[in-house]
Amino acid sequence: MMKIGFIGLGNMGVEMAKNLITAGYHLQVYNRSSGKADELEQTAITRCKTPAEAAANVPAVITMLSDDEVVTETVIGTDGILQTLQQGGIHISMSTISPNASEKMAAAHQKAGSKYLASPVFGRPEAAAAKRLWICVSGDKEAKESVQPILEALGQGVIDFGDSIGGANVVKIVGNFMIFASVEMMAEAFTLSEKQGLDRAQVADFFGSTLFNAPIYQNYGKLIATKAYEPVRFKAKLGYKDVSLAFDLAQQSGTPMPIGSALLNRMLTAVAKGWGDRDCVEAFDRGVAEDAGL
Amino acid sequence: MMKIGFIGLGNMGVEMAKNLITAGYHLQVYNRSSGKADELEQTAITRCKTPAEAAANVPAVITMLSDDEVVTETVIGTDGILQTLQQGGIHISMSTISPNASEKMAAAHQKAGSKYLASPVFGRPEAAAAKRLWICVSGDKEAKESVQPILEALGQGVIDFGDSIGGANVVKIVGNFMIFASVEMMAEAFTLSEKQGLDRAQVADFFGSTLFNAPIYQNYGKLIATKAYEPVRFKAKLGYKDVSLAFDLAQQSGTPMPIGSALLNRMLTAVAKGWGDRDCVEAFDRGVAEDAGL
Amino acid sequence: MMKIGFIGLGNMGVEMAKNLITAGYHLQVYNRSSGKADELEQTAITRCKTPAEAAANVPAVITMLSDDEVVTETVIGTDGILQTLQQGGIHISMSTISPNASEKMAAAHQKAGSKYLASPVFGRPEAAAAKRLWICVSGDKEAKESVQPILEALGQGVIDFGDSIGGANVVKIVGNFMIFASVEMMAEAFTLSEKQGLDRAQVADFFGSTLFNAPIYQNYGKLIATKAYEPVRFKAKLGYKDVSLAFDLAQQSGTPMPIGSALLNRMLTAVAKGWGDRDCVEAFDRGVAEDAGL
Amino acid sequence: MMKIGFIGLGNMGVEMAKNLITAGYHLQVYNRSSGKADELEQTAITRCKTPAEAAANVPAVITMLSDDEVVTETVIGTDGILQTLQQGGIHISMSTISPNASEKMAAAHQKAGSKYLASPVFGRPEAAAAKRLWICVSGDKEAKESVQPILEALGQGVIDFGDSIGGANVVKIVGNFMIFASVEMMAEAFTLSEKQGLDRAQVADFFGSTLFNAPIYQNYGKLIATKAYEPVRFKAKLGYKDVSLAFDLAQQSGTPMPIGSALLNRMLTAVAKGWGDRDCVEAFDRGVAEDAGL
Repeated sequence: MMKIGFIGLGNMGVEMAKNLITAGYHLQVYNRSSGKADELEQTAITRCKTPAEAAANVPAVITMLSDDEVVTETVIGTDGILQTLQQGGIHISMSTISPNASEKMAAAHQKAGSKYLASPVFGRPEAAAAKRLWICVSGDKEAKESVQPILEALGQGVIDFGDSIGGANVVKIVGNFMIFASVEMMAEAFTLSEKQGLDRAQVADFFGSTLFNAPIYQNYGKLIATKAYEPVRFKAKLGYKDVSLAFDLAQQSGTPMPIGSALLNRMLTAVAKGWGDRDCVEAFDRGVAEDAGL
Repeated sequence: MMKIGFIGLGNMGVEMAKNLITAGYHLQVYNRSSGKADELEQTAITRCKTPAEAAANVPAVITMLSDDEVVTETVIGTDGILQTLQQGGIHISMSTISPNASEKMAAAHQKAGSKYLASPVFGRPEAAAAKRLWICVSGDKEAKESVQPILEALGQGVIDFGDSIGGANVVKIVGNFMIFASVEMMAEAFTLSEKQGLDRAQVADFFGSTLFNAPIYQNYGKLIATKAYEPVRFKAKLGYKDVSLAFDLAQQSGTPMPIGSALLNRMLTAVAKGWGDRDCVEAFDRGVAEDAGL
Repeated sequence: MMKIGFIGLGNMGVEMAKNLITAGYHLQVYNRSSGKADELEQTAITRCKTPAEAAANVPAVITMLSDDEVVTETVIGTDGILQTLQQGGIHISMSTISPNASEKMAAAHQKAGSKYLASPVFGRPEAAAAKRLWICVSGDKEAKESVQPILEALGQGVIDFGDSIGGANVVKIVGNFMIFASVEMMAEAFTLSEKQGLDRAQVADFFGSTLFNAPIYQNYGKLIATKAYEPVRFKAKLGYKDVSLAFDLAQQSGTPMPIGSALLNRMLTAVAKGWGDRDCVEAFDRGVAEDAGL
Repeated sequence: MMKIGFIGLGNMGVEMAKNLITAGYHLQVYNRSSGKADELEQTAITRCKTPAEAAANVPAVITMLSDDEVVTETVIGTDGILQTLQQGGIHISMSTISPNASEKMAAAHQKAGSKYLASPVFGRPEAAAAKRLWICVSGDKEAKESVQPILEALGQGVIDFGDSIGGANVVKIVGNFMIFASVEMMAEAFTLSEKQGLDRAQVADFFGSTLFNAPIYQNYGKLIATKAYEPVRFKAKLGYKDVSLAFDLAQQSGTPMPIGSALLNRMLTAVAKGWGDRDCVEAFDRGVAEDAGL
C-alpha cells in the first residue's frame, strides 16, 4: 500500500481524498481545520499537524488549496513541505493558481532536490466525488509518468499539456474564463429574451438541447434561466479571483481580451455591491438584471 | 401533391427547396437571379418572374432572404406576395430578420386577409441539406398547425415559441449572439493560450471534448484553433448585420449587454479594416490576434 | 425691420427668440404649445398656427426642435415649411439632429427651390439668454453669408465648417460626445477618489482650477463632486438620444469608439433603471456609484 | 545655505534640481547614470555614489524616480536612504507611485525615526523648467509645514490633500487617468470627424478655444489632430504603467471604471503591437485609427 501526502480537505479535496483511499492509498492528511478529516476512512489516514509532516517520507504529496498565497506558504513556509519532502519526491499541485506561482515553487523544489508538477482539475465537488474530474498536468516528464496512477485514481481523464511548468495552470485559467464567459453570455441572452416576452426557461432548454448541448450550458443554463441562486455553490469572490487570474495573464502576455474585461467588471461590481459571498450565478445574472432595470 | 411558393434560393434556400421537393411538394420558385433554380429537379418546380407569381394560388409561401429590407420589399412591393396570396394563405418567413419587421409584415398580411408566421432556422447549408435544421416558429396557432408538415420536411425539430409575432425572430437573434460570443470567447482564450506557449489545437480539442463538447465548440473551435479562415463560410459583413440585430434589440428593450457591445466593436472593426467579405471566424480571430500584436 | 420665421420655443428657443427681437427682428413664431410665446415681446411677434404659416413670406426660417423626426415632420409634413417657404428662402436648422436628416431635408428643399443650412449650437439656456452660444454652420456658401447677421445676433461666435450639408451636425454630435465623456470620466475619477478617502469637492476644485480649467470641468465638475442632481437641467433620456446619435455615426462611418460604447451603456442602463427624466449628471454619477456599491 | 538630498535626475528631476539651486539650496545628488549631473551648476552640488550618501546629514531628501520598485529599492535597499537619513529627516517622495508603496515606505521610515511625505507633481519637463508644476502633498502635518519652502521653489502651487499617507498619490493617479481619458476621447472624436469629412485640426481648434479651452485640450488636441507623434514626449509603456496604477486602485477599492478599462485595453494593445517606446499620443490616436481601418 502506497503512502502519499494530501494537503487541503476543502469541498473538492475531501472527495478527491476519498477516491485515493478507495484506490488503495494511505494518506498523510493535513488541513487547516482538522475536523474535515473526520469524513475520511480513519484507518486509511494519518492526521498531520503541519504540511511538513504530511510530506515526510512519501514519494508524492498533493496540495488542493485556495490560492497562490496559501499554496506558496504551504510549500516554502516554516512548516512547509520543502522542509521534509524527500530527494526526488514530487509535489502534485492541484489548486487553481497562476503559472507564475508554479514557476516560483518549481524553482524552490529544484533547489531542494524535489520536483513540482502543476496539475489543476476541472469539475465541481460532485464530479470529484464521482471520479469524473478532468485532470490537466504539465512539467517534468518522468515525474508525470511516475504519478500517473495517482492522477488516474482521481478523474476520468489525464491530459498532458507538455513540459513547461505552468502550462496546465494556464489551461485551467483559460477554461475558467470560458466558463464564466458562458455564464455572462447566457445571463445577457436570457435577460434579453425575457425583456422581449419570451420564457427564459424555454430559451435555455432549447439551446441546451440543440446547438449548445454541453454540460456547461445545460447545468448553468438551467440555474440562470430559473434564477436558482441558492444554495451557494461557488462564491462570487472566488469567481472574482479566477477572473483576475485570467486578466493578469492577459496583461502579462499582451493579450487584450474584451470579454475578459467585461467579466472582470461584472465580478468587481458584484463584490463592490456586497455579493461576494453569494453564488457566482447570482453575481452574473443579477448584475445583468439590475443594469436592465429588472 | 401540394403546391407551395418558395422565394429565395441562396445557399440555404436551395437546400431547403430540395428537401421540400423530396417530401413531395411542387414549388413555385422565385429568385432574383434565375440560374439558381437549375439546381432543383425541374419537373417539381414552376419558375416565377416575381414574388407575386410565386405566391399565387398556393396555401403557403416561404421566404428565405437576406434582411429586413429585402423581405419587406418582397412582401409589400409592387410585385410582392401580398398582391396575390389567397385569403387565409400563410407566409412562412424563415429569414433572419428583426421582430419589428415581422410585426410590420404581420399587420400588412392581416389587413390583406392572409397570415404571417415567423419561422427562422438554425443551421448552416450543410445542415439544411441534411435536413438537420432546428426550426423556430411563433405566431398564429392555427397557421402553425397548418404548416407543421412543411416545417417538418425541412429540419430535425420544430420548436414553438408561442403566439407573439416576433418571438421566434428574437430566439434566432439571441442564438446568433450566443454563437458569436462563443467564437469571440474562443478566439480570446486560444490566443491567450498561444501567447503562454500552449498548442492552440490541443487546447481547443481538450475543451471541445470535455466541458464544451457541443457542436458549436467542436466545429468553430477547430477552425479558430487552426486559423482555417478559408473557404469563406459566412461573411463578416453578415456577421455584423446579425450582431447589429441583437444590439438593436438590446437598445430597444433596455438591456445593457457588455458582451454584445464587445461583439459589435469587433465586427465594426473588421468591416472598417476591409474584412467584410472574409469569413467571420477570421474577423474575430484575426481581430484578437492583431490587437495582441500577432 | 426684417421679418423671419421661428419654430420651436423650448428652453433654448425662447431665449434665442428674445435675442433676435432685441436685434430688431420681427418673428413669425410657431410652437406646438402656444403658451410659450407669452414670454416674448408681443409687438415683435406674429403668432402662427402651423410651421407653414411661420415660413410664409420670409427670407429665412429658424427651427429649434427636439430630434430628427420632429424636424423632418416640420419641414415636409402637411403643414410643413416647404409648403410656403419662398424661392431662395433659407431654412436655418439649429436643432441637434443627424447629418443624415440634414441631407434628406436639404434635398427636399433643393427640389422645392429653397435652401437648407445646418446650424446647431453649443450652450445651455443660460448661455442662449446671455447671447453666449457658439454657433456652428455648414452648407451653401451664399446662404451662409446671407444669414450671418441672424446667426451673429444669437451667440458669441459663428464657426463655418464648410460646404458639406451635415458637417455642422457632426461637430455638434462630436462635441456632445466629448461633453458626456468628460462627465463620465469625472464621475469615475471622483468616485475612485472618494473610495480612497479623498474629498470629492477638493479633487474637483483642484483639477478645475489647474489642468482642466475649462467651463465644462468647472461647471459639471462641481455638480458631480457635490452630487447636485437637482434641479434637472438636461434629462437623461435626451442624453441617451445624443449619445445614440454619436454611436450611430460611429457605426455608419466604421469608427469603433470604446468610450462611445461605454457612454451608450451608461445611458441605456440609466433609462432602463427608470432615470430617464432625471438629470444627466445623476445618470452618470449615480450609475458609477451604484456599480461601486455606494 | 540649506543642504538637501536629491535623487533621480531624469527629464523631470534635472529641471526641478535647477530650480532648487536657483532658490539657493545645495544639493547632494544621486542618479543611476552620473552624467546627468553635468547639467547642473557644479558649485551647487555634491555628487554622491549611493542614495544613502545623498541622504546623509540633510534635513530632507527628494526622490523623483520611475516606479514603485525603484523608489522602494532606493529607500530600503542596501544603500538606501534609510541607512543614513537623520532622526526626524524627511523623505519627499515626488515620483508617480501607488499609495500602497507610499504606505509601506512610510512605515519603514517611521520605524527608522524619519518621516515620509507623498508629493507627486503635475506638469511636463517644460513646466518643471518654468517652475510651473502643480505640487500635491499629503501626510504628516509638521513635515509638510517644514518642507513647504522646498516645494514652493519647485512649482506654481502646493495643494495639501490631507493627512493620509497616500492621498496625494491617489490625486496624481486620478489626474493621469483624466488626462489619458481626454486623449482617448479626442482621438475618438477627431477620427469620427475625419471619417465624416471634417478637418481634424479645425475641429480640435474649435473645441480647444471654446468649451474645452484648457491646456490639456489645447496642447494634446493639436498633437492629436495633426498626428504629431514625434518627438516622443512620454512613452506608451510609461502610459501603460500609469493607467495600470489607476486600474489597480479601481480593483482594490471596488470601483468599476468603464473608461478606465477602455484605456487599459488601448495601452495594452499599443504595447502588444510594439509601440511601447513610441509617444503616448501615437499609441492612442493610431490605435483608434487602425481600428477604424485608417
